[in-house]
Amino acid sequence: MSELDDYLTRQRGRVDAALAAEFPLDTAPPHRLLEAVRYSLLNGGKRLRPILALAACEAVGGAAEAALPAACALEMIHAYSLVHDDLPAMDDDAMRRGRATTHVAFGEGVAILAGDALLTEAFALLSRRALQAARPRPLLRVLAELAEAAGARGMVGGQAADLAAAGAPADMATVEFIHVRKTGALLLASVRSGAHLGGASAAALRRLSHYGECLGLAFQIADDVLDAEGAIAATGKAAGGRDRALDKATYPAVLGLPAAKARARELRDHALAAVERFPAAADPLRAIASYVVERAVGA
Amino acid sequence: MSELDDYLTRQRGRVDAALAAEFPLDTAPPHRLLEAVRYSLLNGGKRLRPILALAACEAVGGAAEAALPAACALEMIHAYSLVHDDLPAMDDDAMRRGRATTHVAFGEGVAILAGDALLTEAFALLSRRALQAARPRPLLRVLAELAEAAGARGMVGGQAADLAAAGAPADMATVEFIHVRKTGALLLASVRSGAHLGGASAAALRRLSHYGECLGLAFQIADDVLDAEGAIAATGKAAGGRDRALDKATYPAVLGLPAAKARARELRDHALAAVERFPAAADPLRAIASYVVERAVGA
Repeated sequence: MSELDDYLTRQRGRVDAALAAEFPLDTAPPHRLLEAVRYSLLNGGKRLRPILALAACEAVGGAAEAALPAACALEMIHAYSLVHDDLPAMDDDAMRRGRATTHVAFGEGVAILAGDALLTEAFALLSRRALQAARPRPLLRVLAELAEAAGARGMVGGQAADLAAAGAPADMATVEFIHVRKTGALLLASVRSGAHLGGASAAALRRLSHYGECLGLAFQIADDVLDAEGAIAATGKAAGGRDRALDKATYPAVLGLPAAKARARELRDHALAAVERFPAAADPLRAIASYVVERAVGA
Repeated sequence: MSELDDYLTRQRGRVDAALAAEFPLDTAPPHRLLEAVRYSLLNGGKRLRPILALAACEAVGGAAEAALPAACALEMIHAYSLVHDDLPAMDDDAMRRGRATTHVAFGEGVAILAGDALLTEAFALLSRRALQAARPRPLLRVLAELAEAAGARGMVGGQAADLAAAGAPADMATVEFIHVRKTGALLLASVRSGAHLGGASAAALRRLSHYGECLGLAFQIADDVLDAEGAIAATGKAAGGRDRALDKATYPAVLGLPAAKARARELRDHALAAVERFPAAADPLRAIASYVVERAVGA
């Protein structure tokens, strides 16, 4: 794991520096908005989505630098979605990553606006870079796919379905509908963004898309498993957890923990198979797929 | 005015049909989200921003059709901003255009998501059209300018400054800062979008930008004047209005009504002068500048 750790640390540093540069402290927007944007974005996150973009770019022979605008835009969109999902009218979470959520720290109005700013600036960044590029098409394609993944047929649709499903027991079809959109779409777009900007062939793009789909679902199941087991450990109850308590649609709630874990392992294996024929440059993608699942369900 | 009325009705019909087609009722997102999006967007609005884009496109010799994607994106961004600005954590408005605001009709969570969807889909639409275009650059430029106008240095920054200014008496610098960003930026981007897509020369773009800046500010002052006079008529008080009651930053509150009206007329004259040398195809732009100001302050 140490090699993966080194890789993740190096790429995270690259992404964090680029993100901080996007929102320098001396720009025009009202100071409080900028503070809230930076608080929401520059928070020591894992940067999974940006790192997937950089790793996919390298896996097809590109330089990671080429994927950096996409990496930043992906994290900005991810950060916006967390800020809005945490709001009282949504999941009503007061804490995230061990500190107050944005609306608790800055008030609801500023939090809504900080999310709006992060979403908008993601597209501003990509379109600026596309205009500057000699060949704008790959960045334009990334922009289109990110907007699609974030929009009504993607993340926003998933969150709306999640809101609608709260309070009633969910079935498997609802859980899949929600997770494919709410987290799967942006993880898939992360991998595809890197592939586009690394100049992937059509065949490589197809394989990486399959990798991204499997990884996205595996990631969500692993996250649900960690949540459920954390809640079991905390409460001593035999099953359930925070999301179950809220009647949230999760895999462990629908499948039970053992079957959810088996499904995550299966998806990891599919993800690994999809990039089997890729050269050593795809090793980080392989290591990430294993790590994402194994941190939650073991080997 | 009848010629302008005909023009506005015709262009509004074109825009409304294109907007309705963007969100057909049979698509995948959860029905409730789609309903809220359509409720927020297809509401019989004046369509000032889209019509400015179509009119600017025609003014430089383009076909209005070329500006239709920008027109739709502009209205989607405008609709998103109204939905979010009306939220309880922001301006807390229960009514808009004679009916319940989106969060009153659909709940706060769905309203936040409907706004997020409208904003995201505006960029999805423009990037899709750019990818399909033989020459993507004009649409890409429009996308970049819309994102800039909507972002932290534009609308979101203006709304944040407006929130921050509430509850304290505002000075002229604050009022200008807020309005240039909150409404001015998108109105300017509307005119420039049409110019880009109509193939404007650099000189024509410069003149139209000046028109757009003056129109944007004039529009906001006229709106503030109408609000203030409406409140005077309703309450019988000598000055003020809803925004004043809330200590909102407005021109009449800072300048007084007569000076605010004079400033609106002056800006109208500057807008008209900016397009003086344009051919008859710019007549709708001229008529709009006059109409926007004169409906509020007379000739």
